Amino acid sequence: MMSENKLNIERELLSYLPEKNELIGNLVSSMEYSLMAGGKRVRPMLVLEFAKLCGGSEEAAMPFACALEMIHTYSLIHDDLPCMDNDDLRRGKPTNHKVYGESCALLAGSGLLTLAFETVLSDKSVRLNSTEKCLAAAKVLAESAGAQGMLGGQIIDLESEGKQVTVEHLKIMDAKKTGALIIAAAKLGCISAGASEDEIKAAISYAEDIGLAFQIVDDVLDVTSSTEELGKPVGSDNENEKSTYAALLGVDECKRISAELTDHAVNALSVFERDTTTLREFAYYLLKRSN
Amino acid sequence: MMSENKLNIERELLSYLPEKNELIGNLVSSMEYSLMAGGKRVRPMLVLEFAKLCGGSEEAAMPFACALEMIHTYSLIHDDLPCMDNDDLRRGKPTNHKVYGESCALLAGSGLLTLAFETVLSDKSVRLNSTEKCLAAAKVLAESAGAQGMLGGQIIDLESEGKQVTVEHLKIMDAKKTGALIIAAAKLGCISAGASEDEIKAAISYAEDIGLAFQIVDDVLDVTSSTEELGKPVGSDNENEKSTYAALLGVDECKRISAELTDHAVNALSVFERDTTTLREFAYYLLKRSN
Repeated sequence: MMSENKLNIERELLSYLPEKNELIGNLVSSMEYSLMAGGKRVRPMLVLEFAKLCGGSEEAAMPFACALEMIHTYSLIHDDLPCMDNDDLRRGKPTNHKVYGESCALLAGSGLLTLAFETVLSDKSVRLNSTEKCLAAAKVLAESAGAQGMLGGQIIDLESEGKQVTVEHLKIMDAKKTGALIIAAAKLGCISAGASEDEIKAAISYAEDIGLAFQIVDDVLDVTSSTEELGKPVGSDNENEKSTYAALLGVDECKRISAELTDHAVNALSVFERDTTTLREFAYYLLKRSN
Repeated sequence: MMSENKLNIERELLSYLPEKNELIGNLVSSMEYSLMAGGKRVRPMLVLEFAKLCGGSEEAAMPFACALEMIHTYSLIHDDLPCMDNDDLRRGKPTNHKVYGESCALLAGSGLLTLAFETVLSDKSVRLNSTEKCLAAAKVLAESAGAQGMLGGQIIDLESEGKQVTVEHLKIMDAKKTGALIIAAAKLGCISAGASEDEIKAAISYAEDIGLAFQIVDDVLDVTSSTEELGKPVGSDNENEKSTYAALLGVDECKRISAELTDHAVNALSVFERDTTTLREFAYYLLKRSN
């Protein structure tokens, strides 16, 4: 089920890339490289699942799902740049700027951010949803990716480097840095399906909880995994002198909290009348990574 | 007239920035720094003029105008980064990354690109225009800023460095790199006003011509001006081993062509029934910079 979705998402993602002509071929290749570099497709999968759960169609939600994955991918490309985290590896492969050079990677990231809006506002997207829904979706994308969302989280992250920060501070940072796009996934699915207020509220609650759990699990993985499993150098957070949940709370307490958050997330799903098996399994799948 | 517009644009631009709280204050300050670093406001001015020329209102066109200026400003911030042109000065002031550091400048650029979409899709923008017009405007923004527009021009520019290229190649590059946003300005004004097909065609034709003229004049200025006048080191294009119109055609031929393009642009305005004085003067004002 989930792997079938993944293939559909990847096929659709490719369809939105511009043609690779002689002039802009390298830029498009560089965008494609990161877009197709694997990953769990957590965000687009959530968009599709929430759309179905609220009575919408996977087909209509797909452009929203792809747009969100483009924004996520852009953030990874820019995050890996030398002036940011300066990472050479991402998901076990050389990072974009290692393959295409820094300037092309910079443009590729911006290209994917821009393409996200083209995608959500495309004729296909408007036809399958509606002008109103596409406008609402584009607004969600912009707000969650912008200075009050993901980019805000990134600046907080940058300015926290080398400082001892509190767990509360980490939570605020992560609610923006990674949480904003996960919550956007829930909202986008709901928008495509024309969900009720109660459904939207429950979807956001689920997304908030698994978003934080996801981040805490990531911290734990950074301490406990091998480079091979993780696809990036182990302890890289530590080398960059970042405060983490694992460092502040210890691995065991992190596991306890992330399990609690996951349960809470799953409980929020009781509002929905349709089958929530996939989203429940999904929450536990994200959690399980840390064990 | 033009300076009054400029003040209105700058006041409105500021109104779209997020509040500067403790957490994201530096990011917002960095966005504001470049947004308020002067400049001629060519693009937003064109949006407003074309809106009025097609029977629309300046007030309704203003969010579109601001969004376009945000995209232009983002492109300047990223363009100045060390991995791109590595410029220390822009409009006579230290570039964004010189003041706020590279990582913050990177985020500020992306923040402005994202804010452009928030702005064009804002409640105010929808109320003054309509859902349909705002969606159309956001599409124009995304297409003109993306891989087939401005970013495409930038990758062509990067890959042309140190190579001897033809005037034709330069024209294709500039039509994307700078032309795309100037043409977007014309389109956005027309969209806000609900212009006719003929009006849109004429507006695009005017924008194409002054866009190219603008670029040729810039090349000439790079050869003939002092650093003080230009606000950036003279001959910086030459140092970066870029082929320019001035280098390929000579200053005199460049002046002849840009004058011809300006006349052609002004002629296209004959379609409009309303007073085109401002746009005529504007075209000659842009040209005059080279004399």
